[in-house]
Amino acid sequence: MKLEKYQIEEHNHAHRSTHQQRIDYVRSWVSNSDHIIEKLIEFQIAIPSWALGTGGTRFGRFAGAGEPRSLEEKIEDIGLLHSLNKSSGAVSLHIPWDIPKNPKAIKALAAQLDIKFDAVNSNTFQDQKGQQHSYKFGSLQHVDKTTRDQAIEHNLEVIHYGKELGSSSITVWLSDGSSFPGQLNFRKAFENTLDGLQKIYGALPDDWKMFVEYKAFEPNFYSMTVGDWGQSLLYASKLGPKAYTLVDLGHHLPNANIEQIVSLLLMEGKLGGFHFNDSKYGDDDLTVGSINPYQLFLIFNELVEGMDARHMNHATGLGWMIDASHNVKDPLEDLLQSVEAIMIAYAQALLIDQKALEYARQKNDVALAQEILQVAYRTDVRPLVAEARLRSGAALQPLELFRTLKVREHLIKERGTQTVATGL
Amino acid sequence: MKLEKYQIEEHNHAHRSTHQQRIDYVRSWVSNSDHIIEKLIEFQIAIPSWALGTGGTRFGRFAGAGEPRSLEEKIEDIGLLHSLNKSSGAVSLHIPWDIPKNPKAIKALAAQLDIKFDAVNSNTFQDQKGQQHSYKFGSLQHVDKTTRDQAIEHNLEVIHYGKELGSSSITVWLSDGSSFPGQLNFRKAFENTLDGLQKIYGALPDDWKMFVEYKAFEPNFYSMTVGDWGQSLLYASKLGPKAYTLVDLGHHLPNANIEQIVSLLLMEGKLGGFHFNDSKYGDDDLTVGSINPYQLFLIFNELVEGMDARHMNHATGLGWMIDASHNVKDPLEDLLQSVEAIMIAYAQALLIDQKALEYARQKNDVALAQEILQVAYRTDVRPLVAEARLRSGAALQPLELFRTLKVREHLIKERGTQTVATGL
Amino acid sequence: MKLEKYQIEEHNHAHRSTHQQRIDYVRSWVSNSDHIIEKLIEFQIAIPSWALGTGGTRFGRFAGAGEPRSLEEKIEDIGLLHSLNKSSGAVSLHIPWDIPKNPKAIKALAAQLDIKFDAVNSNTFQDQKGQQHSYKFGSLQHVDKTTRDQAIEHNLEVIHYGKELGSSSITVWLSDGSSFPGQLNFRKAFENTLDGLQKIYGALPDDWKMFVEYKAFEPNFYSMTVGDWGQSLLYASKLGPKAYTLVDLGHHLPNANIEQIVSLLLMEGKLGGFHFNDSKYGDDDLTVGSINPYQLFLIFNELVEGMDARHMNHATGLGWMIDASHNVKDPLEDLLQSVEAIMIAYAQALLIDQKALEYARQKNDVALAQEILQVAYRTDVRPLVAEARLRSGAALQPLELFRTLKVREHLIKERGTQTVATGL
Amino acid sequence: MKLEKYQIEEHNHAHRSTHQQRIDYVRSWVSNSDHIIEKLIEFQIAIPSWALGTGGTRFGRFAGAGEPRSLEEKIEDIGLLHSLNKSSGAVSLHIPWDIPKNPKAIKALAAQLDIKFDAVNSNTFQDQKGQQHSYKFGSLQHVDKTTRDQAIEHNLEVIHYGKELGSSSITVWLSDGSSFPGQLNFRKAFENTLDGLQKIYGALPDDWKMFVEYKAFEPNFYSMTVGDWGQSLLYASKLGPKAYTLVDLGHHLPNANIEQIVSLLLMEGKLGGFHFNDSKYGDDDLTVGSINPYQLFLIFNELVEGMDARHMNHATGLGWMIDASHNVKDPLEDLLQSVEAIMIAYAQALLIDQKALEYARQKNDVALAQEILQVAYRTDVRPLVAEARLRSGAALQPLELFRTLKVREHLIKERGTQTVATGL
Repeated sequence: MKLEKYQIEEHNHAHRSTHQQRIDYVRSWVSNSDHIIEKLIEFQIAIPSWALGTGGTRFGRFAGAGEPRSLEEKIEDIGLLHSLNKSSGAVSLHIPWDIPKNPKAIKALAAQLDIKFDAVNSNTFQDQKGQQHSYKFGSLQHVDKTTRDQAIEHNLEVIHYGKELGSSSITVWLSDGSSFPGQLNFRKAFENTLDGLQKIYGALPDDWKMFVEYKAFEPNFYSMTVGDWGQSLLYASKLGPKAYTLVDLGHHLPNANIEQIVSLLLMEGKLGGFHFNDSKYGDDDLTVGSINPYQLFLIFNELVEGMDARHMNHATGLGWMIDASHNVKDPLEDLLQSVEAIMIAYAQALLIDQKALEYARQKNDVALAQEILQVAYRTDVRPLVAEARLRSGAALQPLELFRTLKVREHLIKERGTQTVATGL
Repeated sequence: MKLEKYQIEEHNHAHRSTHQQRIDYVRSWVSNSDHIIEKLIEFQIAIPSWALGTGGTRFGRFAGAGEPRSLEEKIEDIGLLHSLNKSSGAVSLHIPWDIPKNPKAIKALAAQLDIKFDAVNSNTFQDQKGQQHSYKFGSLQHVDKTTRDQAIEHNLEVIHYGKELGSSSITVWLSDGSSFPGQLNFRKAFENTLDGLQKIYGALPDDWKMFVEYKAFEPNFYSMTVGDWGQSLLYASKLGPKAYTLVDLGHHLPNANIEQIVSLLLMEGKLGGFHFNDSKYGDDDLTVGSINPYQLFLIFNELVEGMDARHMNHATGLGWMIDASHNVKDPLEDLLQSVEAIMIAYAQALLIDQKALEYARQKNDVALAQEILQVAYRTDVRPLVAEARLRSGAALQPLELFRTLKVREHLIKERGTQTVATGL
Repeated sequence: MKLEKYQIEEHNHAHRSTHQQRIDYVRSWVSNSDHIIEKLIEFQIAIPSWALGTGGTRFGRFAGAGEPRSLEEKIEDIGLLHSLNKSSGAVSLHIPWDIPKNPKAIKALAAQLDIKFDAVNSNTFQDQKGQQHSYKFGSLQHVDKTTRDQAIEHNLEVIHYGKELGSSSITVWLSDGSSFPGQLNFRKAFENTLDGLQKIYGALPDDWKMFVEYKAFEPNFYSMTVGDWGQSLLYASKLGPKAYTLVDLGHHLPNANIEQIVSLLLMEGKLGGFHFNDSKYGDDDLTVGSINPYQLFLIFNELVEGMDARHMNHATGLGWMIDASHNVKDPLEDLLQSVEAIMIAYAQALLIDQKALEYARQKNDVALAQEILQVAYRTDVRPLVAEARLRSGAALQPLELFRTLKVREHLIKERGTQTVATGL
Repeated sequence: MKLEKYQIEEHNHAHRSTHQQRIDYVRSWVSNSDHIIEKLIEFQIAIPSWALGTGGTRFGRFAGAGEPRSLEEKIEDIGLLHSLNKSSGAVSLHIPWDIPKNPKAIKALAAQLDIKFDAVNSNTFQDQKGQQHSYKFGSLQHVDKTTRDQAIEHNLEVIHYGKELGSSSITVWLSDGSSFPGQLNFRKAFENTLDGLQKIYGALPDDWKMFVEYKAFEPNFYSMTVGDWGQSLLYASKLGPKAYTLVDLGHHLPNANIEQIVSLLLMEGKLGGFHFNDSKYGDDDLTVGSINPYQLFLIFNELVEGMDARHMNHATGLGWMIDASHNVKDPLEDLLQSVEAIMIAYAQALLIDQKALEYARQKNDVALAQEILQVAYRTDVRPLVAEARLRSGAALQPLELFRTLKVREHLIKERGTQTVATGL
């Protein structure tokens, strides 16, 4: 299924006057609204290929219907999202779930839908059919060199596929770790992992980045070999200038101050990118902004301030990606809600009067500093986000249009109800 | 495979003199050692049928080999454990994974292996093939009466199977809850759930107990409809005298004081039983005592003191069950380690000088109270546990014998390497 | 210092036209805006007497200046707040810090400032000069009857003072618990505490309520004798119809779902009131809404829905109180920010389309349910809150006026810089 | 008060035969018992001067009696501890609480009692009388250079005192951070702090070490400027070879894997030392080993393995110090219990068969690896620890002797009941 331009236009026409009133109101209060709208238009969030199907937990999976059955259909799904919001113009592929059989055709399809190829992802947390060595006890950390080599080889293969498609970064998330005290020599696990990462790093094309993702726990329940930002930074520093830390919002211990981590990684020039989602307990992989939107805003505050301080381009300076699992919602609807939440947080952060904030800090005026943040946060920026969509040819109300056009029903008709997309 | 008596005896004979030295030493220091040994002999821990196969996480499952392919083989596995330690003389079945096709034959097999039928478990957290209504949005909490009725019906069926086998309790664990703010009206979810539980309760035979298990999170990641001991107690109190709270050690928020919960539930006469395991982050389902054995000891301190205060029989007063997931260990070895850890904690708790402890408390002598607990905890009680096994015809060193006899290798020969036991 | 009516009027006059534009805009989108404004006008939040001075931590206290030196000056401070926002028309006193020497005069002063007397608070977590028995090892839980009796007696005295002033509820927060395993018999501690509470309950005037506050940890670091909502509800249920649970937002284990607790306590008719604040790690006592305003909104969603379902008056059905500690902000500014955050969350909750939400729930339309909540939450309701203030004679921008009028500077002139208010 | 040699000898004589039986038994099972005993004899744990008085919480402080009133009396208290266990032969001083008026006399007194001077501690988390600039908004992070300079100056002064007494390390714990979002620019706070640390580092004598202590939260409740091991390592790496990370067991987020942190810091050559204590919720500062002794054992496992791998001397390679707060116990008794718990954990770790463990790891034999750890942990090593004391002239049962000799009563007689030691 593909959305036609006229469908967007009809929808926007119907909402035009209401929207106009709203955006006029916001513009009358916000001095830099055009600047913000331009920034919003540029900002693109990659959709991970595995988030297009219904996810599950270890207790079960309640499949959806009309889910993509192939890489082509996954890209078509992202095309649908992108035509609705013009903010989802990239895909993050997962190997081996998404091995392109015909890279040229895939590239052409993506180009046609205005979809870029963001970071490719390797998978050494599952065993694949016919795989010689098992990752039951880890991959790059493994005590056996043959298993480590196999994992390295797989990553090289992922880079190969990425190059074919035009990607320029690889995300390495390792589930390596241990579930019991005694299982692992932490130091040797670190050293093995570093050695493997160095070999993968060595194979990186010059213009590529490597993102080293960390996670506090799960699927290992005692230790993780890339367990926190400190460890990830240690790897990235030892690897070299093309290696960076990737922050997944759900990969922390309870109560962690993620925004401070973001600020310090930026300071070190070692922040590579983001996996957006939300969570209450662990790596819950919920819709972005559904649990703690203020935290998301605070993170964007650090991003805006920190990237500006380093003269980084907001849109291209870091890798922006959603990583969520849609267990009880329609995956496409969930992704629309996630993108909306990100754009809102970004817009609010752009609203912050950074000069005034700096002044308040210089005066140790804590109440005023809070006030400045909250004035931005409490502002209803939805009209700005909608205006950015309007200007880039997307829908004023993407979720509403998705439902009005009965997109899922069409996809079910095309693909059937028994589809199960690859992924978790 | 079945262990022969002579195999145990040969093993014990080989370890006899060493053991004798150890137990003599302990007996010379511990005045009530015979009392403790008797208590240990009586104490039986039920093995859940789903813990006999390799578990997994949502990220993957690394299957083991030689796992039980049927209910019969599961009971045989527990028979093996029980012949090794004589402390695992019960099974906790899970419906529909373990529907007995021929109850009489199953009962005969179990009797022959000295295995009793502990609590039966219902499953409304997964959809079964051919099931009319999905539990995607809950079971007893569901907004649709037809789905609720189906879940009630399933529980009645579980009671039916339990009666056939001679069980006398049902554990109801509901994964019901919500993953997003707004998804659920908490009050109505509670009321629906209570209504369903009442209907199940109404079908309980007179001598049965119903265990209402609580869990803080997972698989729902925003709220759980039986989320903590307070909620479980509320249900159990409204249900009536046959309803009790079941405590699973991994089902709490970080830092929860589980031993206090145990004490208060005993005080209220509403503690029904236990799911033993250990964890560091969430419901990690690790081997009992592998992460925080002192906490396990403190829980047993409350159990011993609290059950004695209510004149409850330690062995039969509560339901004792392991609930773990063996992702990186041989399931049978893991269970042997779990049972050992439980027996050690229980023995240590029996060593506590409760009178002296009470005296210290009366004096607010906190240092002394700690000293009394730690004197018991620091004592090496393994000889007492081994002696209990010796006296009941089990092996002095169960895990060692399991390995010496190459039990798993035999099971693989019998069952093959491609087996996958039902369970998580 | 007292604010004069003309000062408010001048301020409002200066902001009038801007405000008019904003409120007109909101009113054009929000159909029930007058209903919301009325509700906001009625809603009053009690200020605790101990929050008017600078707080501290165990590591130190950095005093402010111009803090109230007497009960009279505390009430004057609340009078200042109330004249600024007309939402702080009550005080919650703490005995013995606020023993009224001349109750009549105090009552007259409060009446003049339109301040009511909300719940009185007892203190058995500190030893007072000349006190016979120490609370080092607890108060109502204490192993010695004489200490328990002393604590009971103190609570009766607090009720006495409360009656004199026109209060009609007492908040009992017990720091009782233990810091080490073994220190306490949990059951006996519970029973002693229950016995003490019963005696205090017995002395309650007919129209009084008793609020039993719970707390997960601190100042005791192993167990708390009223440690969670389950325990508090157990006490309150055993005590009788005048006993209720009080929820302090910072008194939970990490990741607790407070909104669900609120809903269930309302269901049971046992929610008594609130201590508002915010926190990231523990009982951090930060400004309301400064860390997780969405959680506050979700709590108000439960309050509005649950109170309406029980036909409770929002303003008077529960006790509303701030409990915070102002370590790095001016206490009065902090309180203005806290009240504002509460009013905003309440207004957003009143905006929720409860019928549509119920419909979405009936359809298990999780995405829609989230959308409905977030439409309300993302709306800028500050004009509604300001309009409520305008109509009740308060300032459109209380914090701004506080600063423009240099209130703190005046207070310092009156009271000096070396003042230290009683409290934590 | 001073213990006489004969008092120790009488005590040991009375316990001699019992001890002999126990140590003989252990020696018959433990092959390297003499090696372990020697290691235990060498191992010394510094006592912080502030732990000799009763601590408190922000809610109150329940003073003890007979507490040291001067630096001399503090050193005498440590002398008492050291004569009882011969494992407490060092003191860690805190400036300004322990400024030595007569350094020579203090050194002589310490030498006489066989007490060394371990790390000196600076204090920029409180304001001292007469101090020009307040630390209310931080010290080294402060936006004002004058305040930062004052904090640097104070640290230089601390080094000065340390040199006078013969110390060779300084522990810098900064309470710097923020309590509210917006209050701080994290990057600038880091840079200011780094700049200050560099200036202090520049003044370090050649043979000194600087310990950079981290803490997750408290007294700041939103962010800490040295908040985790990653940040501490970043500072230490930028500072140079004399700068190290100091690990305080209570300074982590919930569920943190401290043993892994220890292993990685050792790997990096950047672990400097320890603050021992135990906790359940936060920085509870409870007696070492009172909450989770298995974790302590696991940490010592990493220390033994990791220090051996780097050929570090166990006793002198790192700084070993207790940091606890004794709110409900006699401080000296508490310290005796803490030292005992440390020695037990160290002895158990020395018992681990590292070769067998490494073999199990090479085989991915997780059950065996756990078994190897637990065999060591479950061994009753108290006789080894007692034997080490016996050989070094200390008491077999220090706590018992402390009580038998009525040490506290004597101290009260000497010092009175109204003493309040400096500290928290």
